[in-house]
Amino acid sequence: MSEPIPLQVEDGELALLTDLYQLTMTQAYWKESMQERATFSLFFRKMPPARRFMLACGQQHAAALLSRLRFNDAALERLASTGLFDPGFLDWLGDWRFEGDIWTLPEGTPVFANEPLLEVDAPIAQAQLLESLVMNLVQLETVLASKAVRIVMAAQGRPVVDFGMRRMHGVDAAVRGVRAYRSAGLAGTSNVLGGLRHDLAINGTMAHSYILAHDDEREAFRAFARHYPGTTLLVDTHDTLDGVRKVIEIMREEPEVGVKAIRLDSGDLGELAKGARELLDEAGLEEITIVASSGLDEHKIAALLEDGAPIDAFGVGTQMGVSADAPVIDLSYKLVEYAGTPRVKHSPGKINLPCRKQLYRRRDDHGRYVGDIIALRDEAIDAGEPLLRLLVQAGRLNDDEMAQANGARERVADALSRFPEDVRRLDQGESDYPVTLSPGLERLQSRS
Amino acid sequence: MSEPIPLQVEDGELALLTDLYQLTMTQAYWKESMQERATFSLFFRKMPPARRFMLACGQQHAAALLSRLRFNDAALERLASTGLFDPGFLDWLGDWRFEGDIWTLPEGTPVFANEPLLEVDAPIAQAQLLESLVMNLVQLETVLASKAVRIVMAAQGRPVVDFGMRRMHGVDAAVRGVRAYRSAGLAGTSNVLGGLRHDLAINGTMAHSYILAHDDEREAFRAFARHYPGTTLLVDTHDTLDGVRKVIEIMREEPEVGVKAIRLDSGDLGELAKGARELLDEAGLEEITIVASSGLDEHKIAALLEDGAPIDAFGVGTQMGVSADAPVIDLSYKLVEYAGTPRVKHSPGKINLPCRKQLYRRRDDHGRYVGDIIALRDEAIDAGEPLLRLLVQAGRLNDDEMAQANGARERVADALSRFPEDVRRLDQGESDYPVTLSPGLERLQSRS
Repeated sequence: MSEPIPLQVEDGELALLTDLYQLTMTQAYWKESMQERATFSLFFRKMPPARRFMLACGQQHAAALLSRLRFNDAALERLASTGLFDPGFLDWLGDWRFEGDIWTLPEGTPVFANEPLLEVDAPIAQAQLLESLVMNLVQLETVLASKAVRIVMAAQGRPVVDFGMRRMHGVDAAVRGVRAYRSAGLAGTSNVLGGLRHDLAINGTMAHSYILAHDDEREAFRAFARHYPGTTLLVDTHDTLDGVRKVIEIMREEPEVGVKAIRLDSGDLGELAKGARELLDEAGLEEITIVASSGLDEHKIAALLEDGAPIDAFGVGTQMGVSADAPVIDLSYKLVEYAGTPRVKHSPGKINLPCRKQLYRRRDDHGRYVGDIIALRDEAIDAGEPLLRLLVQAGRLNDDEMAQANGARERVADALSRFPEDVRRLDQGESDYPVTLSPGLERLQSRS
Repeated sequence: MSEPIPLQVEDGELALLTDLYQLTMTQAYWKESMQERATFSLFFRKMPPARRFMLACGQQHAAALLSRLRFNDAALERLASTGLFDPGFLDWLGDWRFEGDIWTLPEGTPVFANEPLLEVDAPIAQAQLLESLVMNLVQLETVLASKAVRIVMAAQGRPVVDFGMRRMHGVDAAVRGVRAYRSAGLAGTSNVLGGLRHDLAINGTMAHSYILAHDDEREAFRAFARHYPGTTLLVDTHDTLDGVRKVIEIMREEPEVGVKAIRLDSGDLGELAKGARELLDEAGLEEITIVASSGLDEHKIAALLEDGAPIDAFGVGTQMGVSADAPVIDLSYKLVEYAGTPRVKHSPGKINLPCRKQLYRRRDDHGRYVGDIIALRDEAIDAGEPLLRLLVQAGRLNDDEMAQANGARERVADALSRFPEDVRRLDQGESDYPVTLSPGLERLQSRS
């Protein structure tokens, strides 16, 4: 019997989830006895046009995983099968341990172009090997959280629930995405495994198929409401307002089922919400709330609310699940220092900042953010608390620092309240929030 | 010591990767003793504007996995913890086995709007439970292969290599994406685990960091070429054409390193390729080929080749890795039949095709495709071979059918050669390839 191709990537295989050149370059460093310390910096050069800030998410999780990366025997055998590697190098890989330092921004820190999200200081053959995987891991959560937080902002305090599992790019995206959604402030998710694993409330309503499988919409409503008192009923399978009337009849006949909400999933959501609200209020069912879904994003939600649509909660899937208007950020993991000297690629028209860095976010007397400073790590700067934290030191994860990662949701909410309104706007355009270079970095930059 | 949050989704957890309402609806069917057979059909309603066809990929893999789905004790305990499920239902879930039929298109079949990619016939409580996961699994490979095949077409026979692992949405996307790339006709991937698992050649060059870690570009080239005779050298770290001259010098001094190619990764790729080609040819190094990468997609590749750029191979990452111009398709998994009667949601302006279906692709006398017919499954149609195949029958995977899945790459190449040129064009716009309804489906459609 043929075995299905596995979905899982086991711990021992994770080290092979890399680009081949990381391994061939590492073998070259090994052959050349290049073992000096290197610093690599993770940042993005340009904000996507549809974003005014990004939420740096996943970097602490990634660093924790990477500090434990190992090449097990099975992985070494598979590398040997390529014919590209010396037996001596494979033995060395078998003993490979990450023994360097990893500095990270706390999960959920808003970031702008050129700001370091994570820096690795380690012998070059250790730091180089992390590149591809750290980029993959950080990009997913950062891209998804940065879209989701915009939708949360658009909903102006109304709950937003993730309905997007089916649209996300595979299993890992669907599960780990919920972690990003939690950081971004979503109220819940329909995704059972994602919600259980990442501690976000699991929500669910019903699908059209349940209605269609019954001979009669009213009977479907009645049956479901009896099974699940306090449920949400999907009213748009046939005629939306007719569906609302059926809900009202059921509540008259059996008020004990206590229908909590109705869901609209097609048509003109604003008009239908107004019509449904009117019918429910006339029937004295002011307590039944209205959930809307179907192709929503931050712009549609903002327009619905602007237009006074009486919608109490939003279910969002497709657009948020892949961050459709900015599905990728151009993350770079660049060598910035080797053997104690600055290194930088000279690229016409691109900023490349050399050396180990630190990031500062200045506050005014009211606690509002007034600007960021990218500085050299060891430079004395009077600008408040440094944001990059030493999470992994000499290969060991700092548990106290790691425990902070759980506070991402609160950190995001707090940070958003401190930025100027310009940063939080949803329309396209760059914010004029100032990000400047420290005097020390400015000097190195102009020399390079 | 804090444990990192796992990345893995174990077999026993996979059944929980679903939307909550699938489980609450299934419990409702169980309570109502609704056990009639249902048919669900997987299709998409609209082609993304940037696509003229999609490659249906992942549906056979998904069906094979789903036919083995189980709820293990750990999963049942986690469901019990939600407080939503009766102990009797959880016992029933523990015994749950998929015992129905799954019809699938062969992996790599080009498809158009409203054509069924997969149909499930099973008692409704079995078919409903597959919905969210089958959609997640099929969408990933379908979206990625459908973008990648356009890039392969643009390259007009020149090899295209995947460099996108770092940009893809998480671990599963990065690994399983290579399976989609293989189907689409890519020549190789830089992704080690993806290539090893899905049998696509692993390729690699070098990164700027290797050059920068050396004090001198020439010494870096020389060292790398000695380690890896026949390698590709990245020439754009400082000045591209100056880098090419260094490669030429090294080949003069040590022809035995046999540099196979140079890679350009920034700047005006077309102009730099011409300049590099000229230098190499003047030096009698016609055998050294030119690889280009950096922000490429099908349109940029087509423009470069149109302009006569002497590029021999392309490395493609970001745009392909997330299918940036169409990162999602609006897949639906709809109930179309229950207890032997057609079921369909009435949606103004949307086509909803009821009943179990079959798909036919008609050929002319030269083997060219001339149009598709969506038909009722049991309808007698004289239109060649039916495309939907019975892959899982009464819960059992048909190994012979499954073995065909490996032929996706050849199937794609063959199919593309049979479509009119209009389908294969890269510019935006709908093809006029005809997709029609059979007489039987037409009759049901106009009645519904």
